[in-house]
Amino acid sequence: MKQYTVLTLFPEMITQAFSHSILGRAQKEGHICIEAIDIREFSKNKQKHVDDYPYGGGAGMVMQAQPIYDAYASIAEQKRGRIIYLSPQGKPFTQKIAEQLSFEKNIIFLCGHYEGVDERVLEELKVEEISLGDFVLTGGEIAAIAVIDAVARLVPGVLGKEESFQQESFSDGLLEYPQYTRPAVFMGRTVPEVLLSGHHGKIQQWRKEQSLLRTKQKRPDLLEK
Amino acid sequence: MKQYTVLTLFPEMITQAFSHSILGRAQKEGHICIEAIDIREFSKNKQKHVDDYPYGGGAGMVMQAQPIYDAYASIAEQKRGRIIYLSPQGKPFTQKIAEQLSFEKNIIFLCGHYEGVDERVLEELKVEEISLGDFVLTGGEIAAIAVIDAVARLVPGVLGKEESFQQESFSDGLLEYPQYTRPAVFMGRTVPEVLLSGHHGKIQQWRKEQSLLRTKQKRPDLLEK
Repeated sequence: MKQYTVLTLFPEMITQAFSHSILGRAQKEGHICIEAIDIREFSKNKQKHVDDYPYGGGAGMVMQAQPIYDAYASIAEQKRGRIIYLSPQGKPFTQKIAEQLSFEKNIIFLCGHYEGVDERVLEELKVEEISLGDFVLTGGEIAAIAVIDAVARLVPGVLGKEESFQQESFSDGLLEYPQYTRPAVFMGRTVPEVLLSGHHGKIQQWRKEQSLLRTKQKRPDLLEK
Repeated sequence: MKQYTVLTLFPEMITQAFSHSILGRAQKEGHICIEAIDIREFSKNKQKHVDDYPYGGGAGMVMQAQPIYDAYASIAEQKRGRIIYLSPQGKPFTQKIAEQLSFEKNIIFLCGHYEGVDERVLEELKVEEISLGDFVLTGGEIAAIAVIDAVARLVPGVLGKEESFQQESFSDGLLEYPQYTRPAVFMGRTVPEVLLSGHHGKIQQWRKEQSLLRTKQKRPDLLEK
């Protein structure tokens, strides 16, 4: 079983996000375990504050090192592993990274908020930084949820037959071909005839052409790689 | 007020994700309104199925056009606007797109599942396709949550003073400088002296250098742009 532990100020956001659909089922079936640890519980002051003003001034608050460090230290030895800090500063997340991470037994995710996290705890914990993309979110939780989702679905047993990942985008460096299902006519729009032909070879050929065509039109950068 | 309407098979995932933190507060304060519409409610068959086998064969199921179209049609005229389909096929999401979308009064998000969505409803609704990045998720919900989060936090009034977005990553094309907060020493690690100097000019200078240095080290591609 794969263990994903999330250090966060909003533990409910994490547990709720994974209580549905495919990853909800995967947890019940014991393929993966997703746990959230509330950093605030490790605050040492009465008001349970976890942030303070930045040294050197400036807008925003900075998350303090100690509660984060202590939250990490509370994780049982056998659940420790690579620790990933979700940050716009990190290495951009890709399907290749998802595949690599899907082999890890334990992964810890640290979610920042406000203006960021005291640099020293990032150094002390030797975090790896991963970025979901070149955009800014209100906190690291949504990025952690996306990364866990992309990684966990690659864990054997997590996806059912209906959710197969045999022919999906990026698995061969191309975008997926268009899909059609019943009825044969929808608002005057028909299904491409070849798909109704029953001719397996021609269907394969058409789909390959469509994949190439779409990649050329929508993401020519993928073809250059 | 900005209106974000999400067409989804997992409406609770959407409402729960936005019941916390900054965007939970922004909804209570009336800056934004996030609604989820359950596509399954528009299924016309007894079992409430919304998917079927792909024409031409292959693994996975395809979401049918009709329930999606009818879910869209149920949205009141004054809440309609651009409709965004979250898909790995789309234009990669960036902070620039987030800024543009933050000016829209209404945005509709369509979340796909399984192997995808019948192409004809995408054509009929003239969807814009946006991709969260070059990775595959179990469904469009997490991508929609990320896009809404990145867009909504730019809506005036949504962020409080403590969450200021004056000096953040990408706003000037550079990564953010490192942040430090109390205590002055954490596990033997000190705060860079300049930040304790009280010399505003030197602090500004140091931070600018750090931003540049980090961008060079971690994301040289941002400097080339």
